[in-house]
Amino acid sequence: MPDLAPASSLSYNLLEKRRPTDMSERIRATYDIETPLPVAEAAAMLAGEQSSGTFVAVPSETPELRERFAARVEEICAGESVATPALPGAKQAARYQRARIVISWPLENVGTNLPALVSTVQGNLYELTQFSGLKLVDLSLPAEFCQAFRGPAFGVAGTREVSGVSNGPLVGTIVKPSVGLTPQQTTALVSQLCAAGIDFIKDDELMVNPPHSPFDERAKAVMRVINDHAERTGKRVLYGFNLTDDYDNMQRHYDTVVALGGKAAMISVNSVGLPAALKVCGRGELVIHGHRNGWGQLNRHPLLGIGYGAYGKLWRLAGVDQMHVNGIDNKFWEADDDVVNSIRECGAELHDKRPVMPVLSSGQWGGQAFETWRRTQTTDVLYLAGGGIMAHPDGIAGGVTAIRQAWACAEDGMTLEAAAKRHSELRHAVEKFGRKEPS
Amino acid sequence: MPDLAPASSLSYNLLEKRRPTDMSERIRATYDIETPLPVAEAAAMLAGEQSSGTFVAVPSETPELRERFAARVEEICAGESVATPALPGAKQAARYQRARIVISWPLENVGTNLPALVSTVQGNLYELTQFSGLKLVDLSLPAEFCQAFRGPAFGVAGTREVSGVSNGPLVGTIVKPSVGLTPQQTTALVSQLCAAGIDFIKDDELMVNPPHSPFDERAKAVMRVINDHAERTGKRVLYGFNLTDDYDNMQRHYDTVVALGGKAAMISVNSVGLPAALKVCGRGELVIHGHRNGWGQLNRHPLLGIGYGAYGKLWRLAGVDQMHVNGIDNKFWEADDDVVNSIRECGAELHDKRPVMPVLSSGQWGGQAFETWRRTQTTDVLYLAGGGIMAHPDGIAGGVTAIRQAWACAEDGMTLEAAAKRHSELRHAVEKFGRKEPS
Repeated sequence: MPDLAPASSLSYNLLEKRRPTDMSERIRATYDIETPLPVAEAAAMLAGEQSSGTFVAVPSETPELRERFAARVEEICAGESVATPALPGAKQAARYQRARIVISWPLENVGTNLPALVSTVQGNLYELTQFSGLKLVDLSLPAEFCQAFRGPAFGVAGTREVSGVSNGPLVGTIVKPSVGLTPQQTTALVSQLCAAGIDFIKDDELMVNPPHSPFDERAKAVMRVINDHAERTGKRVLYGFNLTDDYDNMQRHYDTVVALGGKAAMISVNSVGLPAALKVCGRGELVIHGHRNGWGQLNRHPLLGIGYGAYGKLWRLAGVDQMHVNGIDNKFWEADDDVVNSIRECGAELHDKRPVMPVLSSGQWGGQAFETWRRTQTTDVLYLAGGGIMAHPDGIAGGVTAIRQAWACAEDGMTLEAAAKRHSELRHAVEKFGRKEPS
Repeated sequence: MPDLAPASSLSYNLLEKRRPTDMSERIRATYDIETPLPVAEAAAMLAGEQSSGTFVAVPSETPELRERFAARVEEICAGESVATPALPGAKQAARYQRARIVISWPLENVGTNLPALVSTVQGNLYELTQFSGLKLVDLSLPAEFCQAFRGPAFGVAGTREVSGVSNGPLVGTIVKPSVGLTPQQTTALVSQLCAAGIDFIKDDELMVNPPHSPFDERAKAVMRVINDHAERTGKRVLYGFNLTDDYDNMQRHYDTVVALGGKAAMISVNSVGLPAALKVCGRGELVIHGHRNGWGQLNRHPLLGIGYGAYGKLWRLAGVDQMHVNGIDNKFWEADDDVVNSIRECGAELHDKRPVMPVLSSGQWGGQAFETWRRTQTTDVLYLAGGGIMAHPDGIAGGVTAIRQAWACAEDGMTLEAAAKRHSELRHAVEKFGRKEPS
């Protein structure tokens, strides 16, 4: 299916590039496009639609106004051409040309307004008939724009500090079943998880504040166990309480968590949006775990939506401390290359913003630690396993232990096979989870 | 390109349907799917992933818990099967089966939490390898869920009341150029538009609060003209000031508009998210114009994302009074059938919620009134023309007049040709805009 190769495998040849000018005050966005038009014409049209132009010339669009405010085509790299368009609704053509293009805008078009940035670099673009494919793959933002946002209050270093885990990955889990447990049942599980030595526990994204597990009641019960455990052992387990809700409930539940001595919470970023994320993260009292459910809607098509290079920056500026990036050999569709790139993006330079802690998840059970370490050489990750811990043959403690064994052996340069011979918990994990088709 | 036919043209045969049970307490979601698996298996997997299940059985997922909390497959209608998957990343198969399925959840899984509903009915679904296509096309929500939200404070009737336009479509425009005008230039344009008899004016979605047109300064200058015009003529032109920003700025700008005697504002719904929309609309002092830029990202692919049947309900519950639905023969990619369906959806039964006023836009100039009227038989619309008014050969007043002529003649059952013979402004619009390829 060559027409739908993942974005990371597309290749381009540089066709046009503007001479370098001072870009310090310009927003740059990189797109993978497919168009029935000559690429330069399509790129110019995109720049016009998203700045000073409309579908016909209007009297007040003077040359001076255009010179100052028009978006500019900075770079065009041509890719392959195809006979069948990737998306419906484009103008008809014999061939559709793919390209990677860079467009820039003066910062003064947008100001330091994150939602307005989204409307500018994405907005109506996806609806244009001049494109049969369009994906925003990266953003480069002026320092002045980024300085308007604190970004992650905690990020990697802050998460380590609050959790007391100074080395190795944080090992975490999701309360399962996702829905249906009472606060008491949840607490019983949390108690077992604490005893098993877990670092991080979170609500499932489906669990917020339903009648059978009211937020406040669940938070109180869970925090009693976590606080007791911290007092007894000195170890503070982080629990990401799911705040995802309307604005007032999110604030109220945030207050509840703080009052109970909690140190973390989570939001489903796509479900709450940037202004809510800015507000929640802006308080800076809790480590905010960013769940990106809905990501597939925005990224699964190689020529529609947004890539993590752009997406990750938006949420990092909004202040999310941890962000889901799937994991190597995950149960979802996302390819390992994209996962590795997303992990890197979490720590890439973004002016003075703290690195986000990547959250590896989706069918993780320890076995993937080896390939993850080999390809990223970092343990600055939160490694989340739901079923991989809950359904471990030796029980929850066995599941946590197996994951720690896997990471320690991976860092030591061992193979999974060798590690499984050495450690029985990891061996049992391999026997249960390792032979399955990822499902 | 039969593989990418618009969703509205897909056809299905009923395969399975549960016997009717009391659905009053269940959330129902309808999906168009494509899967490498037997459809019933894929549907069951979807239901499991989004309720009580995970990728392996976990000890606490008891039969009692499943019975009470599991999502259920309510209906399966089989469609065609295809050899090539619509999206990458699915399990390999010789054929991929398309189907329309209905899944239901107990209301108590979600509570009355709109963002949590989104995570439940969309969430991780798009990432599952069991699907090579998945689009949420409709939602049916229990009365108890809907009662938790006021919905549009104004909607169609309220917009008519505030604007004083009791009959016919509201005629509106967007300030163009989108960016670059100073508050004084914007005001000069607004003054002309008021004199031309316009009903509604809005900021472009690219224009919020940039250094060259600070929100407060623009709002003050514009409202002076609008208030003067209202005092002199008794006609109150609505101006949709673009609030799209972080939470505090949105609230502050809302206050500014109210203090200046403004009656409307706008938000880019996808850029601000549901909690911010709930909060802004919840104040109920301003008619809120919902701009859905970014819609193409969510809807352009026939087997990815969300259809207006579901999308429109979410934002209507959030309280948006007016919503963009493109227009007949628009400059964007969206097909007329989808536009007509979206217009109907704005007024479809949703318990006691007021109808949303559909906003027709994107390359409108009056000529499309005839087909719009023929197919919808309603004038409960806001008909927005940017270039169609600004670039009219007889000037702005000619542009507004041409649109009113078009709608009046359409309601009288005339053709565009006959109407253009009768009215010179409309004839000039036809001459300038009517012969072009929609671009």
